[in-house]
Amino acid sequence: MPKQPVLTPQADDFPRWYQDVVAKAELAENGPPRGSMVIRPYAYAMWELMQADLDRRIKATGAQNVYFPALIPQSYIAREAAHVEGFSHEFWTVTHGGGEELAEPMILRPTSETVFGEYMAKWVQSYRDLPLLLNQWANIFRWELRPRLFLRTTEFLWQEGHTVHATQDDAAQYARRILHSVYADFMEEVLAIPVLRGRKTAAERFAGADNTMTCEAMMRDGKALQMGTSHELGQNFARVFDIKYLSDAGTQELCWTTSWGVTTRMLGGLVMCHGDDAGLRLPPAVAPHQVVVLLVKDEDGAGDTARKLHDALLAAGVRSRLDDRVDTSFGRRAVDWELKGVPVRLEVGPRELAEGNVGLLRRDSGEKTSVPVDGAVTAVAAAIDAAQRDLLDTARAWRDERTTEVATLEDAAEAAKDGFAKLPLSALGPDGEARLNESAITVRCVQRADGTVPDGEDEPDLVAFVARSY
Amino acid sequence: MPKQPVLTPQADDFPRWYQDVVAKAELAENGPPRGSMVIRPYAYAMWELMQADLDRRIKATGAQNVYFPALIPQSYIAREAAHVEGFSHEFWTVTHGGGEELAEPMILRPTSETVFGEYMAKWVQSYRDLPLLLNQWANIFRWELRPRLFLRTTEFLWQEGHTVHATQDDAAQYARRILHSVYADFMEEVLAIPVLRGRKTAAERFAGADNTMTCEAMMRDGKALQMGTSHELGQNFARVFDIKYLSDAGTQELCWTTSWGVTTRMLGGLVMCHGDDAGLRLPPAVAPHQVVVLLVKDEDGAGDTARKLHDALLAAGVRSRLDDRVDTSFGRRAVDWELKGVPVRLEVGPRELAEGNVGLLRRDSGEKTSVPVDGAVTAVAAAIDAAQRDLLDTARAWRDERTTEVATLEDAAEAAKDGFAKLPLSALGPDGEARLNESAITVRCVQRADGTVPDGEDEPDLVAFVARSY
Repeated sequence: MPKQPVLTPQADDFPRWYQDVVAKAELAENGPPRGSMVIRPYAYAMWELMQADLDRRIKATGAQNVYFPALIPQSYIAREAAHVEGFSHEFWTVTHGGGEELAEPMILRPTSETVFGEYMAKWVQSYRDLPLLLNQWANIFRWELRPRLFLRTTEFLWQEGHTVHATQDDAAQYARRILHSVYADFMEEVLAIPVLRGRKTAAERFAGADNTMTCEAMMRDGKALQMGTSHELGQNFARVFDIKYLSDAGTQELCWTTSWGVTTRMLGGLVMCHGDDAGLRLPPAVAPHQVVVLLVKDEDGAGDTARKLHDALLAAGVRSRLDDRVDTSFGRRAVDWELKGVPVRLEVGPRELAEGNVGLLRRDSGEKTSVPVDGAVTAVAAAIDAAQRDLLDTARAWRDERTTEVATLEDAAEAAKDGFAKLPLSALGPDGEARLNESAITVRCVQRADGTVPDGEDEPDLVAFVARSY
Repeated sequence: MPKQPVLTPQADDFPRWYQDVVAKAELAENGPPRGSMVIRPYAYAMWELMQADLDRRIKATGAQNVYFPALIPQSYIAREAAHVEGFSHEFWTVTHGGGEELAEPMILRPTSETVFGEYMAKWVQSYRDLPLLLNQWANIFRWELRPRLFLRTTEFLWQEGHTVHATQDDAAQYARRILHSVYADFMEEVLAIPVLRGRKTAAERFAGADNTMTCEAMMRDGKALQMGTSHELGQNFARVFDIKYLSDAGTQELCWTTSWGVTTRMLGGLVMCHGDDAGLRLPPAVAPHQVVVLLVKDEDGAGDTARKLHDALLAAGVRSRLDDRVDTSFGRRAVDWELKGVPVRLEVGPRELAEGNVGLLRRDSGEKTSVPVDGAVTAVAAAIDAAQRDLLDTARAWRDERTTEVATLEDAAEAAKDGFAKLPLSALGPDGEARLNESAITVRCVQRADGTVPDGEDEPDLVAFVARSY
C-alpha cells in the first residue's frame, strides 16, 4: 500500500506545503482578529530557545532589557516624517479607554523608536551616560493585507534594540556588531540558516534610517526571507526627540541612534529553510525535543531500557522525550516525530535489543544506524552535533546552488525566479531596481565583492543580490 | 552636618516614599499614555529573575507556554455574562486597522479566558487530551482611574494560566497546586514576602469564577496587597465556549477550567514589603546584583583585590557588580547602592586591606563585619543566604505584629487601620462586608482556623482577614 503523504509535497505547491506543516506539526493557527496568530506550545518552545540564546548575545554587547508601553500617542509617531509615512498604513488605532473617547488616539506600537526616543532624551545628559544600550522583548502590531502565519501577521513577537551613541562611528560599529555577532552568528550557529549580510538600497531601507543592514536567507522554494535588520538612524530621531549630551569639552552635542530587531518570522524561516516533504527538520539547538526515545514494543525489557536511556539522556543535558505510547501504532508515532522534525530518534525494540542494540535515526539525513545500548547516550550526543552542523552545510550548499552570477538586468530577472541573482550593482542602472520590482523582484542586499558589508552605495565594485521574497 | 534624606521617610508620607524610591532607584517612570509605565533596566532585571523562577515552577506542574493575540473581539468577551460585567469599564478599544474602521471593535486583552476558551474547545476532543495546561507571558490592558506605578497601571506584564480538566476535583486540585507550590512558595522562598493563603468572598471573586483563591501580603504601611490569584472557573467558560470531551465511556462531557495569574504588581510588593527609609532592601534571589564590590580608594593594591574578588564571586555563581568609580565620592556611591537595595556590599579599601581584611555590610540588617580577603567569597555567599532568610523572617514578624485578633466588626474596622484584623467569619454577619467596604476596608481572604484554604464559605469556624488594601 503506497503511503498517503501527510503533507502536500513541496514541489507540487510550496505555500500549501507550508500551511500543512504549520498546522499538522501544531506550530500555529490563525487567531480571531484577521491576520493574527496563536502560537502553539511546540512552536513557542522553539521561540523560547531562540529568545534565550539571542538574549544572552544581546546582553553580551552590554545592552539591558526594559519595557515600554504598547500604546504610542499618534503625535509621537508623526514627529519623524519618513517614519510616519512608512508606517501609517499599518496602524492599529485605539480610540477609547474606560468607555470614553481618548483626547488623542493611540497607535499600537508598529515599532518603538519614537517612544524610546522621548525617554532616552531624558536619560542621556552627559557623555558619561553614553552609549545607552536598551532592548525590549515585546508584541508588535502591523495591519497586513496579505497575512501568512509567522511570516506576516498583524501581531507578532520580537525584540527591538534602541541605542544612543556619542559619535556616528560608535553607532555604526555597534549596528555592525549586532548584525554580525548577534544576528548573523545566531542564525548560522543556532538556526543553521546561512545568511547573506548586506546593506539595503535606499528604496528598501527602514522608514527613518540612514542605513539598514540585513541578514537574508534563501528558502527551499527559491524565495528570499529577510531574517533581521540593524539600522543606523543617523541623527534623525535624535534631532526630533532632542537627544543631546554634554560633551567632555562642555558643549551640547546631538546624539546618534540605532535600532535593530528580529521577530517570530524566524520561525517561518526555520520551517522553509530546512523542512522537507516529511515535515520539519529542526536544528538541535532550537528543537524542543532533541531526541525522542521511541519504545517500539514493551516486551523483553525494552520498556525499562527506553526509560533508562531517556533518564540518562536527560542527565547528560539532552532535551529527551520518551514516547512509550505503545497503544498507538509504531508507524504513526514515527511519522509524527518526523513531521515534528525531532533531530534524533532512538528506537528501542525487543528485536534489536536482543542483540544489545538500539536504532538511531537522524531526521536531517535519514541515516539509520544500530548502536549498542551502552554507547547510545554518546552516540545521540554525537548525532546531535553532526545534525546541527550538517543542516547548516546542506542549507548553504542549497543556497549557493540557487545563486546565479549574472551581468545584466534581464538575466537577473530570469535567475531570480528560482533563487538569488548576483549582479554588479552598476548593472542595475538608474531604473533597474524599479523595473525588477515590476516583476516582484527586489534587491535583497548590496555587498562588496568579498562578501562584506559596504559603508555606502558609492563604493566601487559592489554587487547586488536580487530575488523574489517573502 | 546632618544627612539630607534621599527619600521622604516612610513615617512622614508612605505614598510619597514609594514614589521617591521608585524614581530614585530607577525602577520605573510614567509612560506617555495616562497611567502607563516604563519599566527601567534595574526593575526589569528583577522581573526577569522572577519570571525565570516562576516559569520553572509553572512548567513543573506540566503546563506549556503559548501565545495568543492581544486583540480580542468584543463579542468573545461579551459571551460570559459575569465576565463582561466585571471588565467592561476597564476596556481599551481598538476601532481602526490600516486606516479603515473595523467591522467589529477589538478589546485589548484585560485577561484572556475568552480567547483561550475558543481555542481550547478545538484542542480538547477526548479524555486523552486532558488535562490541557497552558500558560502565557503577556502584556495586559486595563483602564485605571487611579493609576500607581507597578500597583495599578493601564498596561502591565503578567503570566496567565488557563487549564482544562475532566472533573471538578482535578480542576480544584490543580488550582490549589498553583496557589501553593507555584505562587505562595515563590513569594515566600524567592521574594521573601510571607503571604496568607485563602479564599475570596463572593464579592471579591474574579468575574466569572466560582472560587477565587488568593495570596495576600502586608506592606509596611499596614495595607494589604493581593499578590496573585488562582481561580476555579467551574463550567462557566466551558459552557459558553463549548469545551467538551469524549469520555472513556463514550459520552460527551462538559469540562472544568481554571485560570491564574501574577503580575508586575509584585515588584511594587517587593518595594513596599521590604523597603526602609534608605531605600530598597532586595532579597538576594531577585537582586540584579547580589553583591557590590565597592572600591574605596585605588591605593596599595585595593583596586587589584577588588577586581579579583569580583571575578572570584562571578566564578562562584554570585551576581556580583564591581564599583570602581573612585572619581565619585565613596559616600555617594554607598548611599546609591543602599537605595538600590543591593543585599551585600563588600568594601575594599587600603586601610582594612593593610590588615588583610575587607568590610562586609548586609543591607537587610545593617550589620557590618570585617572579613579576611581569603574568606570573603565564602562570607558573601553565607551573607546572601542569611539575608534571604532574615528578610522573610523580619517580614513575617512584622506581618504578625500587625495582625490583630478581634471579635466584632467595630474592632475589626479599628484594627484594620494598621494591618490585618482577623475575626470569625460569622462575626461579619449578613451586611458586615458591605459596612467595612464603606470605610475602604475589604475582606482580603477567608481561612480555616488552622490557616488552610477552605473549600467553601459554609464550613464551620472560618476566619476572615480584613484590611485596607492596594
